[in-house]
Amino acid sequence: MRISQYFMPILRDDPKEAEIASHRLMLRAGMIRQEAAGSYSWLPTGFRVLKKIEQIVREEQDRAGAIEVLMPTIQSSDLWKKSGRYNAYGPEMLRIKDRHDRDMLFGPTNEEMITDIFRSGVQSYKDLPRNLYHIQWKFRDEVRPRFGVMRGREFLMKDAYSFDLTREAGQHSYNKMFVAYLRTFARMGLKAVPMRAETGPIGGKDSHEFLILADTGESEVFFDRDFYDMDWTNFDIDYDDVGKVAKLVEDFTAKYAATDEKHDQAEFEGRVPEARRLTGRGIEVGHIFFFGTKYSDPLGCLVQGPDGKQVAVQSGSYGIGVSRLVGGIIEASHDENGIIWPEPVAPFKVGLINLKAGDAETDQACEKIYQGLTAKGVEVLYDDTDERPGGKFKVMDLIGLPWQVIIGPRGLKDGIAEVKNRKTGERSNVPLADIVGKFSA
Amino acid sequence: MRISQYFMPILRDDPKEAEIASHRLMLRAGMIRQEAAGSYSWLPTGFRVLKKIEQIVREEQDRAGAIEVLMPTIQSSDLWKKSGRYNAYGPEMLRIKDRHDRDMLFGPTNEEMITDIFRSGVQSYKDLPRNLYHIQWKFRDEVRPRFGVMRGREFLMKDAYSFDLTREAGQHSYNKMFVAYLRTFARMGLKAVPMRAETGPIGGKDSHEFLILADTGESEVFFDRDFYDMDWTNFDIDYDDVGKVAKLVEDFTAKYAATDEKHDQAEFEGRVPEARRLTGRGIEVGHIFFFGTKYSDPLGCLVQGPDGKQVAVQSGSYGIGVSRLVGGIIEASHDENGIIWPEPVAPFKVGLINLKAGDAETDQACEKIYQGLTAKGVEVLYDDTDERPGGKFKVMDLIGLPWQVIIGPRGLKDGIAEVKNRKTGERSNVPLADIVGKFSA
Repeated sequence: MRISQYFMPILRDDPKEAEIASHRLMLRAGMIRQEAAGSYSWLPTGFRVLKKIEQIVREEQDRAGAIEVLMPTIQSSDLWKKSGRYNAYGPEMLRIKDRHDRDMLFGPTNEEMITDIFRSGVQSYKDLPRNLYHIQWKFRDEVRPRFGVMRGREFLMKDAYSFDLTREAGQHSYNKMFVAYLRTFARMGLKAVPMRAETGPIGGKDSHEFLILADTGESEVFFDRDFYDMDWTNFDIDYDDVGKVAKLVEDFTAKYAATDEKHDQAEFEGRVPEARRLTGRGIEVGHIFFFGTKYSDPLGCLVQGPDGKQVAVQSGSYGIGVSRLVGGIIEASHDENGIIWPEPVAPFKVGLINLKAGDAETDQACEKIYQGLTAKGVEVLYDDTDERPGGKFKVMDLIGLPWQVIIGPRGLKDGIAEVKNRKTGERSNVPLADIVGKFSA
Repeated sequence: MRISQYFMPILRDDPKEAEIASHRLMLRAGMIRQEAAGSYSWLPTGFRVLKKIEQIVREEQDRAGAIEVLMPTIQSSDLWKKSGRYNAYGPEMLRIKDRHDRDMLFGPTNEEMITDIFRSGVQSYKDLPRNLYHIQWKFRDEVRPRFGVMRGREFLMKDAYSFDLTREAGQHSYNKMFVAYLRTFARMGLKAVPMRAETGPIGGKDSHEFLILADTGESEVFFDRDFYDMDWTNFDIDYDDVGKVAKLVEDFTAKYAATDEKHDQAEFEGRVPEARRLTGRGIEVGHIFFFGTKYSDPLGCLVQGPDGKQVAVQSGSYGIGVSRLVGGIIEASHDENGIIWPEPVAPFKVGLINLKAGDAETDQACEKIYQGLTAKGVEVLYDDTDERPGGKFKVMDLIGLPWQVIIGPRGLKDGIAEVKNRKTGERSNVPLADIVGKFSA
């Protein structure tokens, strides 16, 4: 993509309304634009990041055996009245009357609807287990939305729902999602620590939050330093191996880790030697719940068991804040000059900077590299504008692409380009002929 | 995907509420489920088709130089009040009060918001032309939603918006989208005839609808039989070649084609010899508008021209009904047994039928083919259930995958499988060893 033909409205100054780094940087880098309180348009680079995160989430859900569906944003209130949550949910639920004066709502979550979908399609225990998920926009009418996409009102969420015959089978479904979450966040370059959590308005028996550490996190967290020494990359697991999946969950829940809501100082001190006790702040990026028959009971979600009797199914729900993760990753990965994207979620892999656009020789050299990388499937953002070099460097650092390739008349004389790694700041001179070969899609 | 682990709730009987084939078949095949009047959940196979259509639309928008963004579903009413459409739009607009009693709405379209986004990011004619699009759920509160996803209330639409300095440049942007639409629909196996159209509530100067022919179409259409003899596949064009793009548009608009709204019988008879006059019914799947400064004037969307003066930008908008296309394709492609998917949008390419699930030899043969095709990236739906063969054949015909591979003990003895083409009904015996080689991803 050529910046001269792109839409990436960079802000020179820090926007006043932005209290935290991710909000400030997303606005400055032209990734998002506020349309109403807590509601954002995703501009081209922001959209690309959002889609990459969504795709990683999708791939890991599919790998764990979850099946993708898509439920509408607007729901009838009928099922919510049945489950008792229509009145319980409070003013965060966006309630709507349609033209026939029927009570509708913008879904804040989908336990009721998915339970009803499942119920109407499955009659027998033979059709279990199942896990259905979707990635859809939700709306929660927060009193005071803030922190940009971190606490917006309209947000993109992946929510999965498992259905099992027994408590034990339900535990395995829960464990599979637990491991899928470890894998998902690891692929984005994040260490998301699982912490025992309150079940909140979802209700239920067992629940873990996944938190990434960042100074701006909404929760205070307490955890064992040993988490840092665990292997966060080696989650290549057979999901059908009940024992191994359970073992992995055990490994990641054996050590102390709790948010302020669940924290027990005495237990913390008892279980963790002082030198290993860490406290900090965390951002919730995922939350999983096991709630048994909480929804299947009132909604009549029964299957015929092996003995011919009707049994209420055992369920869990599993959320990932897809749009929130865009902000969360920035909170965990930026410096004073801007964003530092982990490669798997970067809007482009390479930023190509033409230091003298309009100069025939420089243009030609850039064009050749641009075409070469593009042909290989490497995503390149090419700064072909006539801005001054200083401005171009600043913008490239701000938007945070993992690699910068800098081409100017001086280097060209020696047949070299400068390659900069955004994260480490390392610079090296690379022969022009080697640039395309240096990157893979 | 194994049907024993999938979620595809097949209905045995025709649902009473379905008046047209696509609605009936989508419900029967377990592709969708109604959640409220005109509002559907997309179950796994329906979701897959929706995503494939969305992806073709996206690729062709990108190819034509449009840039993808994503605007929120819920909009503030402010811009709509400025443009004058807040009152003009009528009861089809879903109006919402948030908890602070602010007027919000579920976007039925995005001219206002995108114009404002563009205005805030672009100041100079040097940044033109631009075309920004998004693929997002819309809501129009139809009095009487019907025909399933063909006239739903919540529907997925691609809407693109072009911005140009002059009328002439705007015309080229319009023409590019025109050609992109021909390409898009052709890739789905459709001949979507462009017809001059009313501009309706969008307003403006020039407009074409793209209609596919089907008995259940909502519009009566009148057109020249010559359309059938045109080349609908060869749209490999350089979008920067203004003349060639214009020529292609001219070719596809030179012949008579009109919906009842724009039809002129005298002109029809004057221009088209009787033998070539066709009438029928059509389903609108795309609609493009050129509206000049209709929105840029009231919303103050100005750029600095080459002479330093401020000029209102020339705009157009370009819609494709993504979710509607799922129904439209079925209307155009089905028989008495079910859906006949064109390959590019089929939920799976191959349906693998195990005629004797549980029999070790048959299971093993099926498994080998299932694994082989999957490894090659061929999408297979494997019927590994213990249903009777007759039921399996019926379901496979109903869901309409392009190819069926049928494996049973009798064929196995001779080392063959039966391969059936869903569209032609042709059957052939293929050696087991050749099955995997026969299909490509």
